[in-house]
Amino acid sequence: MSMDVLQEKIRQKKNPTVAGLDPRLEFIPAHILQEAYDQYGHTLQGAAEAYRLFCRGLIDALHDVVPAVKPQSAYFEVLGSAGIAVLEELCAYAKSQGLYVIMDAKRGDIGSTCEAYASAYLGGVQVGDQIISPFDCDSVTVNGYLGTDALKPFTTLCKARNKSIFLLVKTSNQSSRELQDLIAGDRVVHTVVADLAIRLTDKEQLMGASGWSAIGAVVGATHPKDLKALREKYQKLFFLVPGYGAQGGKAKDVQYAFDRFGHGAVVNSSRGIMCAWQKTGGDGHDFMDAARAEAIRMRDDIGRFVTVL
Amino acid sequence: MSMDVLQEKIRQKKNPTVAGLDPRLEFIPAHILQEAYDQYGHTLQGAAEAYRLFCRGLIDALHDVVPAVKPQSAYFEVLGSAGIAVLEELCAYAKSQGLYVIMDAKRGDIGSTCEAYASAYLGGVQVGDQIISPFDCDSVTVNGYLGTDALKPFTTLCKARNKSIFLLVKTSNQSSRELQDLIAGDRVVHTVVADLAIRLTDKEQLMGASGWSAIGAVVGATHPKDLKALREKYQKLFFLVPGYGAQGGKAKDVQYAFDRFGHGAVVNSSRGIMCAWQKTGGDGHDFMDAARAEAIRMRDDIGRFVTVL
Repeated sequence: MSMDVLQEKIRQKKNPTVAGLDPRLEFIPAHILQEAYDQYGHTLQGAAEAYRLFCRGLIDALHDVVPAVKPQSAYFEVLGSAGIAVLEELCAYAKSQGLYVIMDAKRGDIGSTCEAYASAYLGGVQVGDQIISPFDCDSVTVNGYLGTDALKPFTTLCKARNKSIFLLVKTSNQSSRELQDLIAGDRVVHTVVADLAIRLTDKEQLMGASGWSAIGAVVGATHPKDLKALREKYQKLFFLVPGYGAQGGKAKDVQYAFDRFGHGAVVNSSRGIMCAWQKTGGDGHDFMDAARAEAIRMRDDIGRFVTVL
Repeated sequence: MSMDVLQEKIRQKKNPTVAGLDPRLEFIPAHILQEAYDQYGHTLQGAAEAYRLFCRGLIDALHDVVPAVKPQSAYFEVLGSAGIAVLEELCAYAKSQGLYVIMDAKRGDIGSTCEAYASAYLGGVQVGDQIISPFDCDSVTVNGYLGTDALKPFTTLCKARNKSIFLLVKTSNQSSRELQDLIAGDRVVHTVVADLAIRLTDKEQLMGASGWSAIGAVVGATHPKDLKALREKYQKLFFLVPGYGAQGGKAKDVQYAFDRFGHGAVVNSSRGIMCAWQKTGGDGHDFMDAARAEAIRMRDDIGRFVTVL
């Protein structure tokens, strides 16, 4: 199962972090914007070209430091098809550089529609005599509000194509409590979702050799008590932990996401790494060095509390 | 508010239905596939061209019968950027034909990311001195698992740009009960979501002149008891009702979505209309006539129970 692949990449680099690719035009150095606009003007294609240059630079700077990248689909969708074309290229490029690619798309729908989402991000589509994969990511984030119908098309591909998914359990934002923390009988709603992941893991035989299900869970760094309780309760679920850095989560908070071997979690940072150049006093020509230095600083910061064995 | 626009289009056509555009290659007549593949080969672009020809034909056939179309993003995403380019064109074309365009994307994320989703589907992005809208839909479906953080960027654009959203409340699929029907205190989880819509409607002043909030609710036709209970309880929420036809919902079931004026709901059919040509005994050259006839049959079927005043 694919969560084995992620755990192994983390072990090799001794770094349980993932770099989020959430590009926004205001995060991109002026000389890159200029180059892109010179070529395509103030168009969606111009903006997409700036994303492309910036994110390829980040991948080049980070690929031997971090085990994984997590592109956030929303920031590419806002540029329409021009953004999606760049997203396709970046997924392929990150994979070619040995990175595990987690598409942060938070998809969820009824079964037949979810088959299309699963095919889009983890599988492929049959066109005449060809099977074509537009993104072919290693993993995708999934929203479980619609229940197991929305998960099965993804888990089918997890098994068939050695992929994984991360199910939204307890998200990092403040209003996550409105639904996710409701008490339903003797369970909190977000544990009902985690229980679905466990049930499906057993039913569909999704356990990997390294002891993690192909269904992981998104659990925010901003709720360390929940993180700790969930880690203790769900020992088969690998955690994707957003909320470190810009959103307020600290290294001492995220340590609770890991087991005693320093396994079972990967911590995301997006803005901290992407915007590191804005804090060097330079003009952005150093964005790759700055991103790399911040990724190393983050690795070492978390390393004060967690040692990956 | 934009829900006024939808209600008015429904009133003008005396037809409270929406045609879902959920293209799949197996739904498309052979002569269209042939034309597309002849031009682009068995590629994602070839498949996207088939979608384009098919969906433009459907819009031409339906635009004076139905008030709205609902493209399902998943089926375009599976073709990557080629699919998204066609989705952009179809949104613009449907609007040019007077149709209300509801993007069925079921997006939901933390605040800053949701701003990008909202900008993508309801707003625009500033690129240099231009503001560009890749899709500029009238409405989009939204998943509320992350709470109000995930809704506000959308409601801001509802006010600023006369748009609407439909929040997933009680979906049409079977496993919707796993989360959506849990009892939390004295409330069912899906009514907690509907309550969020009401609270935000009041706080952000989202009521339209026709008595409907700019935040509507997705409530499946496959749960008529819930539909009836929700209609009685949430008199400000316009309902988008999937599940009629192929999924099993009947006209007598969906009648409960409407108020006594036949207002406040729009019923979706996707496969029934798109695949009508497969039941005529023809080879698919009649797909437009067949779709139109089915849309009229559906209007009249629902009209036996609901009269739009």
